[in-house]
This record gives sequence, structure tokens and C-alpha cells, in this order.
Amino acid sequence: MQTLLATASRLQQLHCAACHAPHSAFSLQRVSSCCAQPLVADYDLSAPLTRAAGIQATENSMWRYAALLPLLDEANRVSLGEGWTPMLALPRLAARYGFLDLRLKDEGQNPTGSFKARGLSMAISKAKELGVTGCIIPTAGNAGVAMAAYCARAGLRAVVVMPRHTPQAFREECYWYGAEVHLVDGLINDCAARVRELNAAGELLDVSTLKEPYRLEGKKTMGYELAEQLGWRLPDVLLYPAGGGTGLIGIWKALREMQALGWLPATAQLPRMVAVQAANCCPLVETREGRQVNCQAYMGKPTIANGLAVPRPLGEPLMLDVLDESDGLALAITDEQMLEGLRELGKEEGLFVAPEGAAVWMAARHLLRTGWIRPEEQVLLLNTGSAQKYLENIVGLA
Amino acid sequence: MQTLLATASRLQQLHCAACHAPHSAFSLQRVSSCCAQPLVADYDLSAPLTRAAGIQATENSMWRYAALLPLLDEANRVSLGEGWTPMLALPRLAARYGFLDLRLKDEGQNPTGSFKARGLSMAISKAKELGVTGCIIPTAGNAGVAMAAYCARAGLRAVVVMPRHTPQAFREECYWYGAEVHLVDGLINDCAARVRELNAAGELLDVSTLKEPYRLEGKKTMGYELAEQLGWRLPDVLLYPAGGGTGLIGIWKALREMQALGWLPATAQLPRMVAVQAANCCPLVETREGRQVNCQAYMGKPTIANGLAVPRPLGEPLMLDVLDESDGLALAITDEQMLEGLRELGKEEGLFVAPEGAAVWMAARHLLRTGWIRPEEQVLLLNTGSAQKYLENIVGLA
Repeated sequence: MQTLLATASRLQQLHCAACHAPHSAFSLQRVSSCCAQPLVADYDLSAPLTRAAGIQATENSMWRYAALLPLLDEANRVSLGEGWTPMLALPRLAARYGFLDLRLKDEGQNPTGSFKARGLSMAISKAKELGVTGCIIPTAGNAGVAMAAYCARAGLRAVVVMPRHTPQAFREECYWYGAEVHLVDGLINDCAARVRELNAAGELLDVSTLKEPYRLEGKKTMGYELAEQLGWRLPDVLLYPAGGGTGLIGIWKALREMQALGWLPATAQLPRMVAVQAANCCPLVETREGRQVNCQAYMGKPTIANGLAVPRPLGEPLMLDVLDESDGLALAITDEQMLEGLRELGKEEGLFVAPEGAAVWMAARHLLRTGWIRPEEQVLLLNTGSAQKYLENIVGLA
Repeated sequence: MQTLLATASRLQQLHCAACHAPHSAFSLQRVSSCCAQPLVADYDLSAPLTRAAGIQATENSMWRYAALLPLLDEANRVSLGEGWTPMLALPRLAARYGFLDLRLKDEGQNPTGSFKARGLSMAISKAKELGVTGCIIPTAGNAGVAMAAYCARAGLRAVVVMPRHTPQAFREECYWYGAEVHLVDGLINDCAARVRELNAAGELLDVSTLKEPYRLEGKKTMGYELAEQLGWRLPDVLLYPAGGGTGLIGIWKALREMQALGWLPATAQLPRMVAVQAANCCPLVETREGRQVNCQAYMGKPTIANGLAVPRPLGEPLMLDVLDESDGLALAITDEQMLEGLRELGKEEGLFVAPEGAAVWMAARHLLRTGWIRPEEQVLLLNTGSAQKYLENIVGLA
């Protein structure tokens, strides 16, 4: 009986992130029909489900939480083994800077080398379940690679649109998956405009960040995993590199779901969430500090952390909600600082992380120095990818 | 009580692979003092140890098998989350070519992007436990990167010697870990000569393949994992890319240990082991087919599968034993065929594997066509790494 419970999805409906209007979870959806805003998946969390029954402990991937994921039929699962990534202590850096408990969850060990594997595995699985035959995406790099891989695995057509300055490793990997690649002068928002042109007839599913409901559901599994890996005690501070924002929003959603399920106490102190951005592109910081009303006219510049070059994220309001609710912070890190962080993580801890991950480490150092993080607090860094594909951004700078 | 059992190493002694003379497992060893041949670790496998007690099911790395690994004190564990990699079905390729059950274990999802992480995590952990302060290695690429990462994590000095034609991504990653890198004209055996010069005073531990006993112990965890992931039923045929050979030898050792422990029936049919080499460098094929007495004068050429460019592997006799005992085979695949395999794995299954992994897939196709593999047999491919670091070997060829 427990096995049956563990695999049956508890998906109930979708709701509009802006006005909460319900939408069916059982037909193909994009953004909400009411407000053109992201759709968010709701589950039946009221019927009892213990952790023992709800987690498939033998599954070494994010699919161990299948009961809280939106896929209805396991036969549609499109998986390359994404998730269930390591949670590593950083004892040498902790000792050097005076953290009592410093950890890093290494998403670089996912298929295709980044956390994007989670969201795209989920979105492409649902696309397959809902009869889609091809997908299109604007991307700063990692999401496009992941979409190309999962589309190949599912037998779907894949169209990837990325900035021309994206390191060659990203587009080259897309070619090996058989994807059609378009290069655009500009940042990811310019790619989004090109996606609209290319898909004017709408025959492809646009899996842009938060323009379909299911990448978020894949991303949220990082939240379930970190809770399980920390023995159901949450860190005091969680630092996350925020570009499009689904990771940040997804982790927060997972924490709330676990509270509703009773997997975490309803009174559990949730972590203070830190959204780390690049100084070259930090719309969230600018909005939160009152220098603009919102990001809709923000102009960003390229950064070595390609995933952070997202000047106008659709999920800005949801990210700001997470920072407010968690008593969190948005912070910008320069490319120079990221390089310093890369050197330290490599030489002290044997980690070759994406510049996004290095930014998160430098943010932690900064916040300890300013006293916003206290030495005795448990601090968790999320590294979103491997440095390998970014090599041309950083070659010769070790 | 079970928890105590699960973490205490059952290490007993080492023995010489040639004459079986015992050596202490509790002091620093290199090759055997009697025959200058590899030393192999022995465990107490006679005292009862159930799978439930012997496997730490909550550990999502190769360290779940700590009882059957040589590290004595967990405090010396140098880990980046290596092992417990996904076992993936390849349904689209199976259907196209007529395999009933075709799977791939994806070692590219290890830290540093290859199976070398297992052996080096183990060797560097033992080096730390035995008081070593620095390590040196001749490498075709991946092993050097892994050694550099684990030495950084352990705070040990790292010296890496690799062929000058090795793709830049390998040496660049070593620099980020703070390693000293030497480039040599030639193949890995030429690098080994340079290692002897550089380490003439012997102040560094030489962690060359099979020149210390513990990389083999890390590699053998692939054998434990594949048995556990297949529900303790073994595949009929296991195809493995054989350069230095520790993976092949290690997996076989694990299967024998599991039989001795009763984790597998003593009468279990073990897989037929296929050692896949590159046509440009296939010493094992040449020896096994009688065109040379052994590999000691074999001259190899470079190949896009850098890890297979090992012309004179120290472990040749042990590899030949595995092929004989298992009723196996050694087979060579050309670089052209590897490229064809890379394209197929990418476009059909969403996998961007090292050329070594592509070679293994092409070997399976070939052996099905010749009838050596029957369609109804379960076939397991071992992919040893991610293609990312090999990009300069294959760019533009998708």
C-alpha cells in the first residue's frame, strides 16, 4: 500500500500566481489565461502522507518525491538521473573565514552539468504526457542544453535560442543532441523576442522560465532534498544565484509544502533566503533597494555568470515575495569577485563551480563580514552548475 | 549495532597480484616488494555481513559500501560526492538495434566528470590517513583532474603530468585546483618516465594506476553499485572501456567479494566482460589475439578517447585473467566509429558521453551483429565520463 501511495501524484490543479484563479492541471497550459502570469501547481497535501510513505528511498534521483510531482503516469518520465546531488561540507573555507557550519549543495553533478536538468526533466516529461511534439526555449546556456538533452531522450523536436556571446561549449553540446540552435545579439530577453517570432504559429511548446508550470516543480525538488539531507533541520541562511528565479521560488514552495504535509513542523524556522545576482545584471537588487519600481525597463550587461544575465525576469514579484517572507536579501557580486571565489573554491575545497556558484560563496563571505550572517549559523550555498562549460569565460585566470 | 558494523572497515591485508605474498595494509605501500607488481586489498569476508547491515542506504555516494572499503577512520574521508551514479535504460537505441534490455551506467555524473573520481577519492583518503603530504600522477586527463581536486580538498600538494596533446580543458581544470602541471610529448607511458624523474627523491606518493593499492578499491564500487541497482541480478554482458584497466579489474573483484559475502549466490552467472579499446591503441586486443606475447613493447597512437591511449598497462595480466574467467572478449573501435556512436547516443538518448563511452556502445552494436551478444541478453554499458572536457577533440563534428 505504501508503495502505491508513494508513486501516485497528488496533483490537483494549477493557480494563477497573480490572482489565484484556478486552471486545469490536466490539459496543456502556458501562462494564466486571466493575467498572463505564471501558473503554480497545487497538490492534495491534506490527506496523510508520512515521509516514509511519500519518499521512494531507493530512487537516487529527484523522482524519489514523485508523489509531490505533477507527472501522472510514470511511463512518461524522461529522466537522465537528475537530482539527489551531494551536500558537501566546506571545512577548510569555514575554518579560514570563521563559519561554524558551511555547506554546499553541488548541482554541477546533474546530467548536462547543471540544476537546469531538474526543471527540464519535469517540463519535458509533462510535455510528453500532454502530447507535445516539440519545444523551444530562450536561454543563457544551461537551460538550453538541458532542454536539448531531454527532448532528444523523449524523441521531441528541440529549438534553442541563445545569446551569440554564450560560450561555445553550450551550443556545441546542443548540436550533439540534434537541436536546432539560433544565436541572437543581446541577452536572454532578446532571445525571448526571437522565440516569439520563430514560434509565431505556436506549434512548439515554449518552455521559457515560468511560461509553463512544470520547470518550477522540478526545481523545487532541491528544497525537498536539502531538508532530507540535513535530517529535516533547515539551514539558517540559504544563498542562491537568482537569474530567472525558479530555483529560489521552487525551494521556497517546497519548504511550504513540507510544512503543510507535516514533514517539517508548522512552526519550523525557515531559512533567510539570499538572492545573489551579478553586478552587471542585478534587477532584483535595484528593485528591492527602491531604485526602480520593477525590472520591466532594466538594462543588463553580460557577465561571466551567464545564467545571471536575466535583466527582466518574469518571476520578479514571486522572488521579492520569497525575500520578504523569509527576511532575506538580494545582493550583487562583481565578475572580479566571482573569479576570486572560483580560485578559493578550487584550491581550498577541490570544487570547480560555475561563476554563479562562486558568486554565492562571495556573498556568504560578505554577509559574514557585515554581521548579517552570524558565525554560529548554518549556511548553505547552492552551486547551480559545473564550470566546464564556462571555460572560455575564465581560461588562463586560475 | 548494525550502524557500527556498516561503517567499520573489514580490511585485513594486501597481497601481491603475482605471487600472492602478503603485505601489511596498515603502512604506506606502493607495488609489491617481492615482484614489483600491483598490491590487492583483502577483507574479512567470512564473518556474517548482510546487505542490510553492510550498506549504508542513506549515503548517496560510493561510501555506502564503507565496510568493504579500506579507509579505517571516517575522519580521513576525502569526498566530493563520488559514485552512486545513475543506471539508465536506453529504450530508443534498444528498439532500433534489437536489444531486449540495454542499459548504461553514467559515470560522467561524478565529481570532475568521470569515473576517476572514485579511485582518486579512495587513494587520496588513504594517503591522508597514512600521513602523505603530496601526490604525483601520469595521466591521459581525467585521472589527473580528479587527483588535483581531491588533493585540494585534502590540503595535499598535487603534481600532474599529462601528454601535451591532451585537450586544454583537462589542464585548465587542474590549474583551478592549484595543481602543478607538466606537459610531455608522447603518451601516458612517456609521462610515467617524467614522473620518475620529477619524483626521484620519492617525497611524493605516485598514484599511477595500480602502483598503489587503493584506486582499485574505489573503482570496484562500480561493481557493488551495478549489482544493487539491478536488484542483485547481474547483466549477461558488461562492456567496459579498458585503458589502464582498474575499472575492469575492480568490478570483477567486487563481484567475487559479493559472492564470498553471500550478497550474490556463489553459483551466480557472472557477466561476460568485454574490454573495449581504441583501434589506435589496443595492446590487450593484440596480446589476446596472439600478435604479441604481452604489451611491453606495444606502440600506441593518440585517439580522441584520451583515456584509452595506454599502450603498456601494468594491469594487463589482471585484465586478461578477467576476460578469461568471464568468457569475455577484447575489441578495438576506431575513432570514426566512436564519433558515430557519440552522435547516436546524443540524438537518440540525450547523452553526451566521453568517446570511451561511445566506443563501448559501438562495441555492443558490433557484438550483437556478429551474434556474440544475443538479443534477449541484458547488456550493460559503462560510460566512464562526460564529453565536456573532450570538446576540442570533437568540435564541429556533431
